[in-house]
Amino acid sequence: MSVLIVGSTALDSIKTPKKENPRLLGGSASHAAAAASFFGPVQLVGVVGDDFPKRYLQLYQRRHIDLEGLQILPGKTFHWSGEYEANMNNRRTLLTELGVFETFNPTLPARYQAAEYVLLANIAPSLQHHVLDQVKSPKFVVADTMDLWLNIALPDLLKLIKRVDGFVLNDSEAHQLTKEDNVFCALKKLHKLGPKYVIIKQGSHGSILSGPDGPFLCPAYPLRQLQDPTGAGDSFVGAIMGYLAAKRGSLDANLRRAMVYGSVVASFCCEGFGLQRTARLTRAQIEKRVKELEKLTRF
Amino acid sequence: MSVLIVGSTALDSIKTPKKENPRLLGGSASHAAAAASFFGPVQLVGVVGDDFPKRYLQLYQRRHIDLEGLQILPGKTFHWSGEYEANMNNRRTLLTELGVFETFNPTLPARYQAAEYVLLANIAPSLQHHVLDQVKSPKFVVADTMDLWLNIALPDLLKLIKRVDGFVLNDSEAHQLTKEDNVFCALKKLHKLGPKYVIIKQGSHGSILSGPDGPFLCPAYPLRQLQDPTGAGDSFVGAIMGYLAAKRGSLDANLRRAMVYGSVVASFCCEGFGLQRTARLTRAQIEKRVKELEKLTRF
Repeated sequence: MSVLIVGSTALDSIKTPKKENPRLLGGSASHAAAAASFFGPVQLVGVVGDDFPKRYLQLYQRRHIDLEGLQILPGKTFHWSGEYEANMNNRRTLLTELGVFETFNPTLPARYQAAEYVLLANIAPSLQHHVLDQVKSPKFVVADTMDLWLNIALPDLLKLIKRVDGFVLNDSEAHQLTKEDNVFCALKKLHKLGPKYVIIKQGSHGSILSGPDGPFLCPAYPLRQLQDPTGAGDSFVGAIMGYLAAKRGSLDANLRRAMVYGSVVASFCCEGFGLQRTARLTRAQIEKRVKELEKLTRF
Repeated sequence: MSVLIVGSTALDSIKTPKKENPRLLGGSASHAAAAASFFGPVQLVGVVGDDFPKRYLQLYQRRHIDLEGLQILPGKTFHWSGEYEANMNNRRTLLTELGVFETFNPTLPARYQAAEYVLLANIAPSLQHHVLDQVKSPKFVVADTMDLWLNIALPDLLKLIKRVDGFVLNDSEAHQLTKEDNVFCALKKLHKLGPKYVIIKQGSHGSILSGPDGPFLCPAYPLRQLQDPTGAGDSFVGAIMGYLAAKRGSLDANLRRAMVYGSVVASFCCEGFGLQRTARLTRAQIEKRVKELEKLTRF
């Protein structure tokens, strides 16, 4: 089964205390699509300018990502630039050039409208709505977001949350949205906003899934060195959706393992700038880390 | 098998945003001994003044804690007073009155000198050394500590770490001691200081055991509401040692499960002020949460 993924497709200029890398392939949809592609077919919905490097289109193609939904328009590709502090947790945005993204009107190719697994990766909630409107009978819809939309598009986001099966956010966004310090209290309030499944990301501390089967505490894969955490959250949710779409059996039976795969793919993402490490990743390397996580958590 | 526990035996006056509780039973040895007592016999080494409430001696006795090593001296019991911020993580010390603790000279009763499992709970490293000197042939020695000793008694602490099998500290202390932001890099450096086993506590994010069998990521039991986290770390390590001393089989085979029991007993500690919740705790309640943690982490 294919996963339909909409989100940003961007050029990221990323600065860490150790290195600076200009105009990497980035964006929530790029990271999520690459991560999902290790498990099965992916349909990408996004927009880039005519400055978008050919090698990045080739990177998508090497991951067998369906690009019929990727618009290439005259103008500049969305460009984001950010800088990380030494702890690699805090980052500040240096520059945001929307380019062709400013007028992005995602129209689904006819083939995409039959999608059953839909990932509304981080992008303006209005665009997430617009894509979801075009999907005929989705089976499992998950939305990711970021603090920006909580700040400038909260009503749209709250409407969206009511329409999705799963909602993904990080712990500080959960706190911002619910005013709860305690993550389990926050989860309770988040379910009341609509979604059956809520996933709270906690960076190097792992993540928590909350659903009908009760909570699942998902470990993060232990990394000694992070190169660049940009896109880790997108990779996480991309891998989850890719795994679920590829797997037979009930959703509830597969969801915990999907989280672990998400955690592992996200760990690889952090080991290179942009998509550099993910682009070289193999399914065997993913399986190896999943086995390691089993060993790391067994008691 | 008995566990020998030395540490502070104190009166704690604790203030949280919701409540204020004066002169509760506290101290690292009190919390650790109570936690260990759910698994088997405990020998306590400590000192209190003649103002020490009889009801607190009775509390120790109800937990079947051996008090031959508890000195009752003329003078005041060690009194600590602290205040927690709303997030229940940051706390500040309002007052420290050492009382009889100032001249504490822990002398082990003859029976105690044969102890095999020794917990040097949080107390001045010089006293931890002094107790360890008197144990004839310990089988498994674990030391806990706090930032205060890193600040004012580092040479003593470093000497102690070389003498123990296991060393327990929290993530900020690990950072302070190793200058490493990354917890897995910190663990590597901590092993170089001597101990075969290192445990890093991460509060609500759980804990990490590092030993010959590789790391173990131990979950924290999810709590919606904390009353008072004072003594949670002491309860954690106390339960670990109690479980290990009571359990047959190899240490490495039992250590991961011991951590999970530690995590569970610590969770109960946080649900009441001082030892209030722990004093009412039953082994059946502990087992129930261990099973829940199994369910919460299974994938």
